[in-house]
Amino acid sequence: MNDTKRIMVRGAPIASGRHPLVCTPLVGGSVDDILREVAAVLPKRPDVVEWRADYFGQIADREAVIDTALRIRDAVGGIPVIFTCRSAREGGQRIALAASGVAELLGDVCGARAADLVDFELANAAGDVERVRDAARQNGVTLILSHHDFAATPGAEALLDTFRAAERAGGDVAKVAVMPRTLEDVLTLLSATLAARAALSIPLLSMSMGPLGSITRMVGWAFGSTLTFAVGQSSSAPGQIPIEDLRTALAIAQRAFGAER
Amino acid sequence: MNDTKRIMVRGAPIASGRHPLVCTPLVGGSVDDILREVAAVLPKRPDVVEWRADYFGQIADREAVIDTALRIRDAVGGIPVIFTCRSAREGGQRIALAASGVAELLGDVCGARAADLVDFELANAAGDVERVRDAARQNGVTLILSHHDFAATPGAEALLDTFRAAERAGGDVAKVAVMPRTLEDVLTLLSATLAARAALSIPLLSMSMGPLGSITRMVGWAFGSTLTFAVGQSSSAPGQIPIEDLRTALAIAQRAFGAER
Repeated sequence: MNDTKRIMVRGAPIASGRHPLVCTPLVGGSVDDILREVAAVLPKRPDVVEWRADYFGQIADREAVIDTALRIRDAVGGIPVIFTCRSAREGGQRIALAASGVAELLGDVCGARAADLVDFELANAAGDVERVRDAARQNGVTLILSHHDFAATPGAEALLDTFRAAERAGGDVAKVAVMPRTLEDVLTLLSATLAARAALSIPLLSMSMGPLGSITRMVGWAFGSTLTFAVGQSSSAPGQIPIEDLRTALAIAQRAFGAER
Repeated sequence: MNDTKRIMVRGAPIASGRHPLVCTPLVGGSVDDILREVAAVLPKRPDVVEWRADYFGQIADREAVIDTALRIRDAVGGIPVIFTCRSAREGGQRIALAASGVAELLGDVCGARAADLVDFELANAAGDVERVRDAARQNGVTLILSHHDFAATPGAEALLDTFRAAERAGGDVAKVAVMPRTLEDVLTLLSATLAARAALSIPLLSMSMGPLGSITRMVGWAFGSTLTFAVGQSSSAPGQIPIEDLRTALAIAQRAFGAER
């Protein structure tokens, strides 16, 4: 646990370095829906919230996006916000923006300092990744480079390569989320996470999705995953567990495991 | 989960086939201590209790052992009781009986039908294993053939061989408990359990011990382990979790995982 790197925001670890961080997604379609969601989620005290802007009806309206991001930041108080516009190819909603448009939007979000972290997919064109990375760096925003596979779980070596690629491309955090077809796939994801923790100098987060992979959301922290997504009001990916349940299971597992450290 | 075999006692699955079974050990040194332990543990409703008779001060007194076993059975009502006299070599207390004496004692326990299940180590002399097996079969007692390694975790192939050996030697249940040195070892135990579930025609139980392995006590059921040990009043092996915590964690994990099935 000691060698698990923490996610930093403006030079400090989120939630004073709590491990793992619990993040709840916001998936409302309108400003009102999103603010209602924030109000419902806040009492559950997530460590981080992720605005899944690909669910936002006005995603193609730059001003509306920035304005809403700023309203979310105001509403959540000091809780760090991840701005994510997940591509349809990696499990997001279908939207009017192309990948280059999303890269531009993320650059604008960074420029307006309307989020603490931004997430961009590693599979995007190198030029787009660089553009987002540069905007993030210039504005002190933490960059998560992510990879999602909703169809299968690659082998452990391929998964480790993906973690490494996220670091090489300049990510501050490497995220890998994959779908298991078997329980062996679930173990493969945990094993690759363990290898990546040793191999990378940046923090990482990982999960095996779906019901079959749900245990990784509860035990992934032991293998080096520094953040786990939980349902506040609505889930954004299959297998997410209600935040109250997740916190309870984490506390029990950490009590048992913690005697080691 | 559907293909996880259940442990049978006199022709019926324990606790109507609940999966996984939660078993609490009894480790008292005297009859009074043991009966106090039973009284403390019963309200926590374990599915099975294991009398670790190697902790019993009068273990070399055959009459006292049988009498105490019968008193435990009376005291627990209908809850199945495992009679175990763990060898010092595999993590038990040092006692005056040699392995052949333990085999003889287990035969007597079976003959007196003073337990529902007996546990004997696979590593014992083949003749002793056969003797216990025959006594168990003749008296309708369920035989657990077990292997414990408190020093390390063998490779997945070696672990699978051990599960297979327990079946080949005539066990009704195969038990493997090993100590991890790394988190990779924990994954190896889970992977071998999954392989054994597919390869064996008898039910099995497994765990990775110590704090590092404690998560296997919470998630091993998903990989095919049909019973998990939890602390009722006192633990009998490192890494055991209080029964209330274990039940809570199991319920959360099964709710998340269960959507699959």
